[in-house]
Amino acid sequence: MISGYSIVNGEPQTASAGTFKGFDPTAGRLLEPTFHYAPPEGLDRAAHLAEEALVAYRNLPGKEKARFLRHIASGIEEIAGELVSRANAETALPEARLKGELARTVNQLRLFAQVVEEGSWANARIDPAQPERKPLPRADIRSLFRALGPVAVFGSSNFPLAFSVAGGDTASALAAGCPVIVKAHSAHPGTSELVGQVIAKSVRENHLHPGVFALLFGAGTDLGAALVKHPRIKGVGFTGSLHAGKALMEMCAARPEPIPCFTEMSSVNPVFVLPEALRTRAAQIAGGLFGSFTLGVGQFCTKPGLVYLPANEFGDALVGELKKLVEQAGCSPMLTEGISKSYRSGVAHRSGHSAVRTLAQAAAPIDMKSCHAVPALFEVSGRDLVENPELAGEVFGPSTLVIRYASRAEMLELARGIEGQLTATLHGTQADLAEYFDLIGVLERKAGRLVVNGFPTGVEVCHAMVHGGPFPATSDSRFTSVGTQAIYRWARPVCYQDFPQAALPDELRDENPLGILRMIDGVVTRDAVGRHASLAQAIDTIKI
Amino acid sequence: MISGYSIVNGEPQTASAGTFKGFDPTAGRLLEPTFHYAPPEGLDRAAHLAEEALVAYRNLPGKEKARFLRHIASGIEEIAGELVSRANAETALPEARLKGELARTVNQLRLFAQVVEEGSWANARIDPAQPERKPLPRADIRSLFRALGPVAVFGSSNFPLAFSVAGGDTASALAAGCPVIVKAHSAHPGTSELVGQVIAKSVRENHLHPGVFALLFGAGTDLGAALVKHPRIKGVGFTGSLHAGKALMEMCAARPEPIPCFTEMSSVNPVFVLPEALRTRAAQIAGGLFGSFTLGVGQFCTKPGLVYLPANEFGDALVGELKKLVEQAGCSPMLTEGISKSYRSGVAHRSGHSAVRTLAQAAAPIDMKSCHAVPALFEVSGRDLVENPELAGEVFGPSTLVIRYASRAEMLELARGIEGQLTATLHGTQADLAEYFDLIGVLERKAGRLVVNGFPTGVEVCHAMVHGGPFPATSDSRFTSVGTQAIYRWARPVCYQDFPQAALPDELRDENPLGILRMIDGVVTRDAVGRHASLAQAIDTIKI
Repeated sequence: MISGYSIVNGEPQTASAGTFKGFDPTAGRLLEPTFHYAPPEGLDRAAHLAEEALVAYRNLPGKEKARFLRHIASGIEEIAGELVSRANAETALPEARLKGELARTVNQLRLFAQVVEEGSWANARIDPAQPERKPLPRADIRSLFRALGPVAVFGSSNFPLAFSVAGGDTASALAAGCPVIVKAHSAHPGTSELVGQVIAKSVRENHLHPGVFALLFGAGTDLGAALVKHPRIKGVGFTGSLHAGKALMEMCAARPEPIPCFTEMSSVNPVFVLPEALRTRAAQIAGGLFGSFTLGVGQFCTKPGLVYLPANEFGDALVGELKKLVEQAGCSPMLTEGISKSYRSGVAHRSGHSAVRTLAQAAAPIDMKSCHAVPALFEVSGRDLVENPELAGEVFGPSTLVIRYASRAEMLELARGIEGQLTATLHGTQADLAEYFDLIGVLERKAGRLVVNGFPTGVEVCHAMVHGGPFPATSDSRFTSVGTQAIYRWARPVCYQDFPQAALPDELRDENPLGILRMIDGVVTRDAVGRHASLAQAIDTIKI
Repeated sequence: MISGYSIVNGEPQTASAGTFKGFDPTAGRLLEPTFHYAPPEGLDRAAHLAEEALVAYRNLPGKEKARFLRHIASGIEEIAGELVSRANAETALPEARLKGELARTVNQLRLFAQVVEEGSWANARIDPAQPERKPLPRADIRSLFRALGPVAVFGSSNFPLAFSVAGGDTASALAAGCPVIVKAHSAHPGTSELVGQVIAKSVRENHLHPGVFALLFGAGTDLGAALVKHPRIKGVGFTGSLHAGKALMEMCAARPEPIPCFTEMSSVNPVFVLPEALRTRAAQIAGGLFGSFTLGVGQFCTKPGLVYLPANEFGDALVGELKKLVEQAGCSPMLTEGISKSYRSGVAHRSGHSAVRTLAQAAAPIDMKSCHAVPALFEVSGRDLVENPELAGEVFGPSTLVIRYASRAEMLELARGIEGQLTATLHGTQADLAEYFDLIGVLERKAGRLVVNGFPTGVEVCHAMVHGGPFPATSDSRFTSVGTQAIYRWARPVCYQDFPQAALPDELRDENPLGILRMIDGVVTRDAVGRHASLAQAIDTIKI
């Protein structure tokens, strides 16, 4: 069932620009079959087909887009067994985790189906004409969000389903009305192709233009770069390393026509344990922290990588608990050899740094395989961290760095020095939180999501979620890549002035045929134009 | 009353890094008093004060922000006479136009006051906890939009009030909760200082931190570059040339921490006249077009600079009408010597181009002053435009280029070749619009605003307006710089997980103390949490 070829125009692209194989990190061996890199013409063809598909797909009613997204979800469920088994072989992620991730993936598709079926996401706004206004009449002004155009999505290594071929980026872009070209992640090519086949089948069975979706295998960074630079591509979605994400940001900015680029890159997710919580719940917090930073072998963008504790006996107690847990931990396979190597080098850098104390490291078996890793726990003083800020960088894997501060003032100063993050976490009682209101104020500026008395791993897919944050967490803090608001990355507002009813999109017609929520003259309503309660808004009376 | 100094910490900054004077383009002479460039320390101080001011200003209730914005509006009205007179001397824009622009400026401030007083703009979303959910409970997730941080605003030359010191960028950024540092445009320094004084007084009289606002005079591009690169600055707003706007985009992208950058740059605002409208309304359309491309001496970003007409007798008739109007036109002063020089060179380039026919040019008086300009009308065939695409570039001033196409297919091909625009205009009957549905589909991808049977100049400040578009019209087509949605350029979503009520912003508290519209469990409501109608959303049931 896995052909080893890219999917363009709904079919396997049998041209080949070189070959590779999947790799099983648990067993340390190559997997069948052989995969073929798409030649440059494959990308060009996919991009031109995406452009051809755009207008019809963008204009497809929300109900039909919803049917398509649900069809993909069902298709993934139909091959769940094969998919989980292949993903398990390619990523070493346990089957239970992959089953959960599959459920998340299909629920995500269905949530976006619901959003576009209901239709209010388009943010329709209508300011009806005021022909009698003095000194100048007001034209009829209406606007809504429309698809950007064909979007490039990069599969991520650490979520082979939920942030890969049919993951959050693809689901939100398809929901917005954008054709999608996915660059498959080479760490799970079989999983990618299986999901790609499901989407291509859904495109076909929903009678959509075959340019709505393509999947490309590419060697190194060449194909990805060509994809991002292709003039037909109008937006980019990526989850991965800071290095690769920055390179994509630069490519998008350097194009003759710069385009929106959403890269989710690097986060160390600081955790602060406040005094009363530390005194009363140290062991519980230590257990939760250990679970969170070793979950999935520490391969989450929300892994808590910095833990701020006071340099006192209560801080010592929590550290003592953490040490015990790390020392008893086992060894597990990471996603790829490269990730494991990079983790070991990060751990070695910390171990060898004069300012860092290695508190604990789990015992590594003598015959440990090249993809495997063991948890490690480090400590640094607040003062030494200020002197060596690079120690706060991300080490992707099951390790965390405890920072011991001497005073409240020093802790606040350290917080102010933190870079942009996806999350920041506080453990505290109500009294702690009231007393450390200024710390919350600092962290609100640093992170997209603040967590109280919990752990940052576990990103709920819902309407209020924000999975984004100031650079280097993401390329643009004004957007989220998880949750229903992720759709706004792939849409831009278009305004229609004095359009006759027949030429308007359904969302903007007087009678509101779709029954969506709209803002008419500043009032949010499902009413038709003319039947809405008018709010006498102080709208500009002079046109220039 | 004009001191000639920058405003930092609410006071004139008497340090000087060089001097300059305002210039009267009508009379061609320097204006008193002398202005002083701010030294680099002035910028640094302004940026640090803005940072200091941020938390308190951002957290200020919407009602108080509204009072502040309205106070600025009233303050501007109080000095309207002096302001219009000074702006007239510095820009050569007629008093009637400046009075209109002043009204637009204060209405814009009051509209944003209304938006933040009402409060629903913050897009509060609440997904309440589901402790009983299987297989895992759902945390309580809430989010809203919060201010980005201190914002740099560049005054634009062509709107000395509405897009300058207290213009749309400043109004929307202050509304979002961002302190603002304005780089004054050197073409209207006195106007800038007068408005700056009003804002500084409003800051003082509303008991706000003096870092909420600063105004800086700077020589050349050095101060602007330093402002955009300053680590305390978290967003940039600019309206001006493509060259300068691209330079700012590049600076924002090249910072150690890249930041959101909204530049509104270049647009030639294509106009298409469809067959039936052309046959029946040629003279009327010609009159409107002439009025639109010569309005304000053609110094609008929405000036129609390309007019697409068929190469037939009906096209000839419209061109004939346009020629008559241009030949009878007079000579008027432009905003600056630089703009006038650049207009003349643009006109000379077209006049001298072998593919271009000069259809008409108004007579220039022998003693025409250096800042003055006369309207000019050019024509090119569709085929020659394809061969010489640079001819479609912006010529800022009272000139337009008529493009004569041979067939419907050629016209569509030309439309597909158009770059990103602020606007695109269609003149057509209902039958024309139905027949040219595919042209509308093309233009929807090219422009932020489509106008039917009107003219693009005249940008209504309202809820549905979109003044933005794909590059090179702006740096980011997902936002608008005019209308209430302009506030979203300066805000990012922040998410609160499992926060106790007391630690939440008012917008997210259960009881909805501000009475704003919120999305609770996917339902938009003003109800309190617990009293909202729950929509059984298919939210992800698995947390990873």
